[in-house]
Amino acid sequence: MRDYDFGMIGLGVMGQNLLFNMADKGFSVIGYDKLEEKALALESGATANTLVKGVTELQEMIDGLSLPRRIMMLVPAGKIVDDVIAELLPLLAPGDIVIDAGNSFYKDTVRRVQYLKEHDIHFMGMGISGGEKGARYGASLMPGGDRTAYNHVHNLLQAVAAEVNGEACTAYMGNGAAGHYVKMVHNGIEYAMMQIISEVYDILKNGLQLHNRQIHEVFKKWNEGRLQSYLVQITADIFLKKDEFTSADLVDMILDKAGSKGTGKWTSQEAMDIYISIPTIDTAVSMRMLSWQKEERVLASKLYAFPATVIDTNDQDVFIDKLEDALYVAFIICYAQGLTMLQKASAEYSMDIPLKDVVKIWRGGCIIRSLLLEDFYQAFVKDNDMTNILLDKNIANLISPRMEAFREVVAKAVMASIASGGLQNTLAYIENYASEKMPTNLIQAQRDYFGAHQYERIDREGMFHTDWDSLNF
Amino acid sequence: MRDYDFGMIGLGVMGQNLLFNMADKGFSVIGYDKLEEKALALESGATANTLVKGVTELQEMIDGLSLPRRIMMLVPAGKIVDDVIAELLPLLAPGDIVIDAGNSFYKDTVRRVQYLKEHDIHFMGMGISGGEKGARYGASLMPGGDRTAYNHVHNLLQAVAAEVNGEACTAYMGNGAAGHYVKMVHNGIEYAMMQIISEVYDILKNGLQLHNRQIHEVFKKWNEGRLQSYLVQITADIFLKKDEFTSADLVDMILDKAGSKGTGKWTSQEAMDIYISIPTIDTAVSMRMLSWQKEERVLASKLYAFPATVIDTNDQDVFIDKLEDALYVAFIICYAQGLTMLQKASAEYSMDIPLKDVVKIWRGGCIIRSLLLEDFYQAFVKDNDMTNILLDKNIANLISPRMEAFREVVAKAVMASIASGGLQNTLAYIENYASEKMPTNLIQAQRDYFGAHQYERIDREGMFHTDWDSLNF
Repeated sequence: MRDYDFGMIGLGVMGQNLLFNMADKGFSVIGYDKLEEKALALESGATANTLVKGVTELQEMIDGLSLPRRIMMLVPAGKIVDDVIAELLPLLAPGDIVIDAGNSFYKDTVRRVQYLKEHDIHFMGMGISGGEKGARYGASLMPGGDRTAYNHVHNLLQAVAAEVNGEACTAYMGNGAAGHYVKMVHNGIEYAMMQIISEVYDILKNGLQLHNRQIHEVFKKWNEGRLQSYLVQITADIFLKKDEFTSADLVDMILDKAGSKGTGKWTSQEAMDIYISIPTIDTAVSMRMLSWQKEERVLASKLYAFPATVIDTNDQDVFIDKLEDALYVAFIICYAQGLTMLQKASAEYSMDIPLKDVVKIWRGGCIIRSLLLEDFYQAFVKDNDMTNILLDKNIANLISPRMEAFREVVAKAVMASIASGGLQNTLAYIENYASEKMPTNLIQAQRDYFGAHQYERIDREGMFHTDWDSLNF
Repeated sequence: MRDYDFGMIGLGVMGQNLLFNMADKGFSVIGYDKLEEKALALESGATANTLVKGVTELQEMIDGLSLPRRIMMLVPAGKIVDDVIAELLPLLAPGDIVIDAGNSFYKDTVRRVQYLKEHDIHFMGMGISGGEKGARYGASLMPGGDRTAYNHVHNLLQAVAAEVNGEACTAYMGNGAAGHYVKMVHNGIEYAMMQIISEVYDILKNGLQLHNRQIHEVFKKWNEGRLQSYLVQITADIFLKKDEFTSADLVDMILDKAGSKGTGKWTSQEAMDIYISIPTIDTAVSMRMLSWQKEERVLASKLYAFPATVIDTNDQDVFIDKLEDALYVAFIICYAQGLTMLQKASAEYSMDIPLKDVVKIWRGGCIIRSLLLEDFYQAFVKDNDMTNILLDKNIANLISPRMEAFREVVAKAVMASIASGGLQNTLAYIENYASEKMPTNLIQAQRDYFGAHQYERIDREGMFHTDWDSLNF
């Protein structure tokens, strides 16, 4: 009997929680996993009186789903996704809908959409942000691809998405691999914001010599103001957590080697391919890599005796307010870089991504949700084709009065030898972006000098080459 | 009659000049180009009494070369290289040697080496740096690939390479695509150094309000000291050049939109794939992209009224000396990032790149040649496996006494709202590299909090996960 609404392949934490979430909303769901204990755990973990079935045979799921079948995959990105598709394809009927909700690289999604289309299967790539809790209680869902297929799953996604002002945090992200592309950039912005926060932590801890409890208070206070955001909120929590093995605070027992799963790297590499500048995200990716060279850094620290890192401030509270301004402006610019990239990619790959909807569904459920997204939403409502939110008057008014504080924070950190590459690069980004004249005219002169690469002029059209003094070679 | 020593496919400026160079050194050469005027120009442009032949038929070149044939391609990178190979292959004999001396992407070279090996043809990828003049009078040549093939062309390359202390600026760079890989990183370092120089120019021009003539004097003086380098030398020249259309200095008439051919981008993308941090190169690539958004920047400049950019210095000459220190340290770190990448890639891809020889042949002929390379050479002579030159005691002694000046320059530029992202990121790199403890422990805490990604501890082995306060979600 084909009467289940939805099927899930892969019952890891995310898949399981998403099914429980759907079931609670009144949908009947089947979960498939080769491992019997996972199939059983699904049924035993479900809320009473919900229709949740766990199976260990793919065919059983196929037979139990109403037509067109709506199946989601939540398996590790990469080859496994292709394996599952190969296993699934012979069992499907034309018109069935398959959604890859993992963190797949968008180029793989482009390929799979095409491949399955040739078999009359609607394939969609969807980004999910919010972690396990988001999957269970409301996440930010970023589906893209086949529009008609989207209409078949729209109601399901609405039901399990987080809500902001009564609106579900999910919307159609665009053609082809738009869903996974948007999620990739979401994670790139996430990398950048986390890097900036870690540098502010460095300034509070080493620059101002605050204890973890005081650092908690600072972030807690900030989260009650204009910096309200999930990342600032959990950062505040983190400084309260005690270690289970020692009497220390847990944060101090954690090794400073940052891992990564690749989405940040993809964002930086991809931005370079579409010729968009996202230096804060690049720095975040780069600093995680540098943090990995722990042993070398320990060696180097003995070779270089850098000065104490205490910042002298006349009034510490005043400086902390300036730090809040710096973090606020830096956050805006992190989003600005990512959104600019999405706008360019949307045109470049004809994905037709509605930026207005992107920032709208990021307001809740996802890791980078923050109060700021409401401002961005208003900006894109006014002009959905805006190439950079920094060009919006209201956004500019949030930034301009805080630039002086931003500069002072960076300059003081520099003099105190507190490495704050993310903050510095973010400042440099807006200084350059808002400068009519960059010193790159010299770079063009150099390129023409040694490579005859030619240059443009400020006063007339065309490309020009000069025979620079060759005797100097 | 097969008696010509060497054949060249593609008689553009580089190919032609390289042939003239070889002929002057006593080798007999044939140049092939479909275009008759180029073939004729080759013969008419050659030095009297040298053996230089220009042909428009590939077969004619093939018949004229002694065995094993030694053929070089200097054609645009990409598909054209594959087309030429396809045309050439049927005409070759087993054991012949083909060298791609263009700026090919190293992964293409890996593929071609393998493909031609299957046809008993020795294929080598070689990087050339030095521009037209280098090709004509002595360049830095970076050949890699088949070792036995290398031995057949070694004497030719030696003859046309630049010389430093009586030693030719060419050496075997390693297996597979090592030649093109080394050249790619050479260009990445070149991007970084040019970015840093452009920022120093910005500080001199806007921060210190110097005129072009004065800026010329500064770079000229620097080039006579420890900053002696090709890039500083041509920068000094550039500020003397008058415009041919107006009465202005040419540098002021050049548009600030920087172009790029891709090698810098490849370097940044590749470094991320092998998990190496090269933030200065990333910034250089990123800022060229940002410079391209000229129209947007002009709009933004009207929206953001940033303060005047004059730096107040008690003593301008003293500040300029500090600027020299900053540029010097920044240069060292640009090289450090690139060389670290080469060391890692050499191991990662079993290219067996001799770093000692890399810096040795970069001392002359190439765009990034400088006095500093002698210091690096000495460092690698001591330890060819050094992962980062910043770990060398002598290098550290060049840096440490200048860090304070470096910080002051960056801090002053920041307060004057002079965007100096390259300098800032370079400073942040060494501050992080030489810090035993980065604030990335917080990033690991955040990742474990929202994604259960686990973390390592400072006091015990293994991966750990904490159930952070879920109520805060």
